[in-house]
Amino acid sequence: MFEAVEVGHTLSREKYNAALPKLRSDLLNAHFALRGQKFPVIIVISGADGAGKGELVHRLNEWLDPRGVETHAFWESSDEERERPQYWRFWRAMPGRGRIGIFFGSWYTDPVIQRVYGKTKGSQFDTALDRIAAFETMLVNDGALLLKFRLHLSKKEQKNALKRLEKEGHTTPTDWRHFKLYDKFTKATERAIRRTDSGLAPWNLIEATDRHYREFTVGKILLEAIQRRLRDAPAATSAPAKSAAELASKPADKAGETVLDRVDLTQELTDAEYRDSLAEQQAKLARLVWAAHNKQRSMVMLFEGWDAAGKGSAIRRVTQAMDPRLYRIVGIAAPTDEERAQHYLWRFWRQLPRAGFVTIFDRSWYGRVLVERVEGFASEAAWSRSYQEINEFEEQLTERGIVINKFWLHISPEEQLRRFKERKTITYKQYKITDEDWRNRKKWNDYRIAVNDMVARCSTEYAPWTLVAGNDKKFARVQILKTIIKRLEAAL
Amino acid sequence: MFEAVEVGHTLSREKYNAALPKLRSDLLNAHFALRGQKFPVIIVISGADGAGKGELVHRLNEWLDPRGVETHAFWESSDEERERPQYWRFWRAMPGRGRIGIFFGSWYTDPVIQRVYGKTKGSQFDTALDRIAAFETMLVNDGALLLKFRLHLSKKEQKNALKRLEKEGHTTPTDWRHFKLYDKFTKATERAIRRTDSGLAPWNLIEATDRHYREFTVGKILLEAIQRRLRDAPAATSAPAKSAAELASKPADKAGETVLDRVDLTQELTDAEYRDSLAEQQAKLARLVWAAHNKQRSMVMLFEGWDAAGKGSAIRRVTQAMDPRLYRIVGIAAPTDEERAQHYLWRFWRQLPRAGFVTIFDRSWYGRVLVERVEGFASEAAWSRSYQEINEFEEQLTERGIVINKFWLHISPEEQLRRFKERKTITYKQYKITDEDWRNRKKWNDYRIAVNDMVARCSTEYAPWTLVAGNDKKFARVQILKTIIKRLEAAL
Repeated sequence: MFEAVEVGHTLSREKYNAALPKLRSDLLNAHFALRGQKFPVIIVISGADGAGKGELVHRLNEWLDPRGVETHAFWESSDEERERPQYWRFWRAMPGRGRIGIFFGSWYTDPVIQRVYGKTKGSQFDTALDRIAAFETMLVNDGALLLKFRLHLSKKEQKNALKRLEKEGHTTPTDWRHFKLYDKFTKATERAIRRTDSGLAPWNLIEATDRHYREFTVGKILLEAIQRRLRDAPAATSAPAKSAAELASKPADKAGETVLDRVDLTQELTDAEYRDSLAEQQAKLARLVWAAHNKQRSMVMLFEGWDAAGKGSAIRRVTQAMDPRLYRIVGIAAPTDEERAQHYLWRFWRQLPRAGFVTIFDRSWYGRVLVERVEGFASEAAWSRSYQEINEFEEQLTERGIVINKFWLHISPEEQLRRFKERKTITYKQYKITDEDWRNRKKWNDYRIAVNDMVARCSTEYAPWTLVAGNDKKFARVQILKTIIKRLEAAL
Repeated sequence: MFEAVEVGHTLSREKYNAALPKLRSDLLNAHFALRGQKFPVIIVISGADGAGKGELVHRLNEWLDPRGVETHAFWESSDEERERPQYWRFWRAMPGRGRIGIFFGSWYTDPVIQRVYGKTKGSQFDTALDRIAAFETMLVNDGALLLKFRLHLSKKEQKNALKRLEKEGHTTPTDWRHFKLYDKFTKATERAIRRTDSGLAPWNLIEATDRHYREFTVGKILLEAIQRRLRDAPAATSAPAKSAAELASKPADKAGETVLDRVDLTQELTDAEYRDSLAEQQAKLARLVWAAHNKQRSMVMLFEGWDAAGKGSAIRRVTQAMDPRLYRIVGIAAPTDEERAQHYLWRFWRQLPRAGFVTIFDRSWYGRVLVERVEGFASEAAWSRSYQEINEFEEQLTERGIVINKFWLHISPEEQLRRFKERKTITYKQYKITDEDWRNRKKWNDYRIAVNDMVARCSTEYAPWTLVAGNDKKFARVQILKTIIKRLEAAL
C-alpha cells in the first residue's frame, strides 16, 4: 500500500507562503462556522517517528482558533485510566459537538506496537482492529466528522529524518529501536489501515518528506472536509436506516409471543421464606462485595423495568447489603448539557467504577432502545444500530473484568394497574405516580416489542439479561440478589 | 471538650423501633423536597475507630433516597489526585445543588493524622485548620447546608468497642495503633473542632456508645437542619454583605486614580525589535515549558482585559511557543449546567492541569469580581467575599508547585474605540465586534474601579497581577512572554 503513495511531492517555500494566507483565513472561517454545529471534528494524526507529526499538530493549532481545539496525547496512562476499560481514556478526551479534537497518538498506537513487538498474534491484532472500526463507525454514525492522517516516510527518508533530529538532540532511544523494526511497523500499519479504511472513516496517506507539502495538504483536506460537511449537514440523521426494513419484515414478532410472556409471574415467596432468604443472601452479598473489592474486581449493574415494577425498592435491598463506600447509584434522567454534546454512551462511560467498586444504574443505556425508540426520540436508524454499540460497550467492560448484571423487572399489566391505584391512595406514595405513568401504560405493547428485541439482541454470554418475575416483590428481590451473587461467585 | 459530652445516653430498642418509622418518612419527605432546591447538603462524619461511623453511614443511605446521596471515602489518593492541590479530590466529590454528599473521611483526616504522628508542628496544624475553616465558610456562604458530626467514645469505651470488633475479625492493625495514641488523637481533634466550630458550620458531638441513640440522634439533627433550611431558604442571598459598607466608604477610589492609570501606555516596540524579541522569547519559553514538564511542574495562566485589548492574539503568541500536547486552553463563557450546580470556583478546579502541564484560561475566576460585579449578576455580599476565596484558591495552587501568571491587558478608551471602528471595516474581524462590546464600553468607569479593587486585593506575593501595556500589541505580547519566562525561571 505504502508503495502506492506517490513520492517526490514538494511544495516550494514561495508557493507555500503565497497560498497560506488564504488557507488560514478559510480554515479560521470554517472553524467559526463549526461552533454552532451539532457535530464534533476528530482528527487522528499518526505516522512514523521523524515524519513531522509534532510540527503538524503545532501548525493545526496555529491555523485554527486554539480556543476551540483540544490536543490529546496519550502518554503513560494514569491509575484511574488503567482501572477502566482500555477505551476509557479516549472517551474522556472526546471533543463535544462544535469542537475539534486532535488525537496525537490514538486507539491505534497500542495495538500496532503490541503486534510489532510480537506481544499479540495476528488474530488478536485483527480483533483489536475490528474494535477500532466499530468504534469509529459509531462515532461517525453519531455525526462526528472523523479525519485520519498517516504521515508516510520511506525507510531511507526516515533514516535521514532521524539523523537530522539526532543532530538537534531530538531523538530518543525508542526512535532508533522502532526504526530497526521499520518493516514490521510498515506491515502492521498497512494492515491496520486496510482494515479500518472505510467510506465513513477514510484514511489519508500523506507523503511526509517535505514539510510545506505535508502541512499544506493536511490543512487543505481538513478545510475541504469541514466545508463539505457544513454544506451537507445534518448528515447524522440522514444515515441509511439499514435495519429499518429488516425490523419491519418481522410483523409476526409484533403480534406474537415475546420473551416476557415466558416469564412465570406466579412465582412468589411467603413472608417467612422472604425474611430468611433476604437475610441470608444479603449477608452473602456483603461478604462477596468486599472480596471483590479486595481483588480489585468491579461490578456494574443496571435496572430497567415497567413503571411501578419495584426498581427503587429492589435497588434498596441490594444496597442494604453493600458498604456505601463501595457503591454509587447513578440515576439516569435527562442528560446534562455536557452529556448532550457527546455520543449517547459517553454519559455511561464517565460513570464506570474504579477497580474494586460498584456502579448501579437506575435506568441505563438501554433507554436508547426502550423509551427513545418507543417515543420516537431517536430515529430508527439510530436506535437500531445501538444494539451492536451496546454489545461492544459491554464486551469492553467484561474484558476489563467488570461483572455486569442487567435486570428487567417484569410485572403483568394487571399488577401494574393495581399498584397505580394503590399509589393514588397511599399518601407517601403519591409522589410516585404521574400522568406520564398512565401515558406510558397505553404503550404497553410497543414496549413489549422493544423489550423483546432488546433482550434478544443484547443478551450476550458475557452480559446476559435477567428477566425478573416481579408480580411478587419479595420473589423479585431475592431473585435479583441470587443472580448477582451467582455472577460474582463465578467471577471471583 | 469531650469531657463535656454528656455520657450514658442510650435509646432502648423499643423506643427506637417505635420512633423510627416517623423519622424515616420525615427524612424521605425532606429529601424529596430537597430535589428542586438550589443548595447541596454536605455531611461530614468523623469519629474514633470503632465508634460506628460505617454503620451510621450505612443507615443514612438506608433512610434517605439512595439515588440522591453520594458517599465519598478518601482512601489512598490516585496519581491524578496527587498531581493536583490537596483539596482537588474534595472538590471533585462535591454534591451538586439539590443533592446530598456524605463525606466519610474528609479534609480533617490528613491534618489530624499528621499532627498526631508528629509530622506537622502545632503552627502548621493551625494553618491547615484555618484553611478548613475558610473552605467550609466558603461552601456555606455559597448556600451549602454543612453538617459535621463527631462520634465520641471514651478511652474505655473505645477499647471495648475494638475488642468486640476484633472478635468479629473487623479490626486492622491501624485501629490498635491509633488506640494507643488515644490521648493525642483527642488533643488534636479537640483543637480541630474548636478552631472550625462556627455558627455557619457547627460541630455536633454525638455520644457513640449506644447504636440506637447515636443513629437516631444524627438522623434527627439532619432532619431538623434540612427542614429548617427549607423553611428559611434562600439563605445564601441574604447573607450579610459585610464588605458592602466598607467598600461604600471609599468614594475617593471611585473617582480618583486607579492602578490602571499608572500603566505607561506609550510603551511600544518597533517592528524590528518585535520580530527579534518575539523569536527569542518564544524559543526560550519553548525550552522552559519542556523543562517544567520534565520536572513535573505545572503552570496556570489567565488572561483578562478590556474588549479588543488583544487577549486572543496574545494567547496565540504564547501557545506558538508551546507543544500542543503540553497545554490546554479553557475559554470561559457561560457555565454548563453541571457547573452552575456547584460553587463558582468548581469549574476552575476541575480544569487544573496534571503535573507537568499548562492550563491557559481565556477569562477566568476573576469574572466574579469583574463582569458579575459590574453587571450585578452576583450580589455585593457574594463578590466581595470572593477576593479572599480567590486568594485562598491561588495559594493552594502555589503550594502544589503550580506557577501562576495573571494578565490584565490594558488599553486606553481611545485605543479601544479605534479598534472597534477598525473591526467594523475589516471583513474577517467583523465577527469580533458585537453590540455587547459597545454596551460594555459605556461601563468603562465601573470596570476601572473593579479592576483596581481586584488588583489591589488579589495581587499576592505568590500570584501577582501583571498589568500589560496593551496600546501597542507588539509591546504587550513581548511583555507577556517575558513575564511568563521570568516566573518559570524563578520556579525551576
